[in-house]
Amino acid sequence: MAEAATTRRSRITPEREAELYEAVLDLLREVGYDALTMDAVATRTRSSKATLYRQWGSKPELIARALRHSKPASLADIDTGSLRGDLNEMVARSDDCQMERDAALMRGLFHAVHDNPELHRALRDLLIEPELTGLSDLLRRAVERGEVAADNPALDYVVHMMVGGFVARDLVEDRPVDRAFLASYIDAVILPALGV
Amino acid sequence: MAEAATTRRSRITPEREAELYEAVLDLLREVGYDALTMDAVATRTRSSKATLYRQWGSKPELIARALRHSKPASLADIDTGSLRGDLNEMVARSDDCQMERDAALMRGLFHAVHDNPELHRALRDLLIEPELTGLSDLLRRAVERGEVAADNPALDYVVHMMVGGFVARDLVEDRPVDRAFLASYIDAVILPALGV
Repeated sequence: MAEAATTRRSRITPEREAELYEAVLDLLREVGYDALTMDAVATRTRSSKATLYRQWGSKPELIARALRHSKPASLADIDTGSLRGDLNEMVARSDDCQMERDAALMRGLFHAVHDNPELHRALRDLLIEPELTGLSDLLRRAVERGEVAADNPALDYVVHMMVGGFVARDLVEDRPVDRAFLASYIDAVILPALGV
Repeated sequence: MAEAATTRRSRITPEREAELYEAVLDLLREVGYDALTMDAVATRTRSSKATLYRQWGSKPELIARALRHSKPASLADIDTGSLRGDLNEMVARSDDCQMERDAALMRGLFHAVHDNPELHRALRDLLIEPELTGLSDLLRRAVERGEVAADNPALDYVVHMMVGGFVARDLVEDRPVDRAFLASYIDAVILPALGV
């Protein structure tokens, strides 16, 4: 199966493939999953629908591939020496524009992932897991330094708090999430919940 | 305009109208905003599309009406004497099934509300504002009782924390939100962030 897929895709250049995935993600942010049609992808990328179906088989497969092609954020090398420093460095890594783009991607997929395990997995690998892994490293070091008690129950919910900050501002305040907001959310919510 | 709309809608009985709105919200939970077509509404409710367009004008108008017809949760009469008691009573008011239905509604609308202010307003009035108002009453009393410092910065973010608990479990853990989860989230995150 994997080999067949590689053979199919090898008909276009890697540059063309990257360009096409970027266009798919742009469309996804603009119109959301359901309204994203293969027709729209064909028009935007000046491809034929036949080519798209031949190369990717189906819309969910194409979108999952595009998500997987996007580079996940790396938090692995953040180590400032304090939990507050690490969390703030994490926020400082994305500019406001990238943050709004990630939030748009999440919004566009929120419903679709519920019914589509393959897409859910791809979104999780791209946006959720790197954050989970990066966060658990930061948190482990904070526990080792004695900043956070090893049995603090909020340790299990840091991602939930982050997702809340990430999506709720738009929903509740009708304003896009940005670095200044997340920095104050970290100080007001995440650090106090962890007892820091 | 409002009078004209009333005249238009008066052609169907209130019972039929309520039945139709319920069917629209069910469809919204099942397929999401974009995939919800007037054709699907017509089929599900055994109406003609002409009737739907004559009565409601457009899909966003019909969906906003259906949301507005749904009864928002009332938190106004919760007053157990402690913040922890009040928050737990709030959670206990919804059964797990209702919670998953509300979460499905949010998921179905997350993208659509971003581009549609009228829908955003309707979702906000139904699910967000009652919570904001109810919460701010609970929190005000907690401050008056001396449980929470009046200048605690987490007071501004309680809804964000709640939304995080509400949507992130599904996204991160692939499990629906339920009362047991929210009760432990309140104890691990919300109360400690508020210094309780």
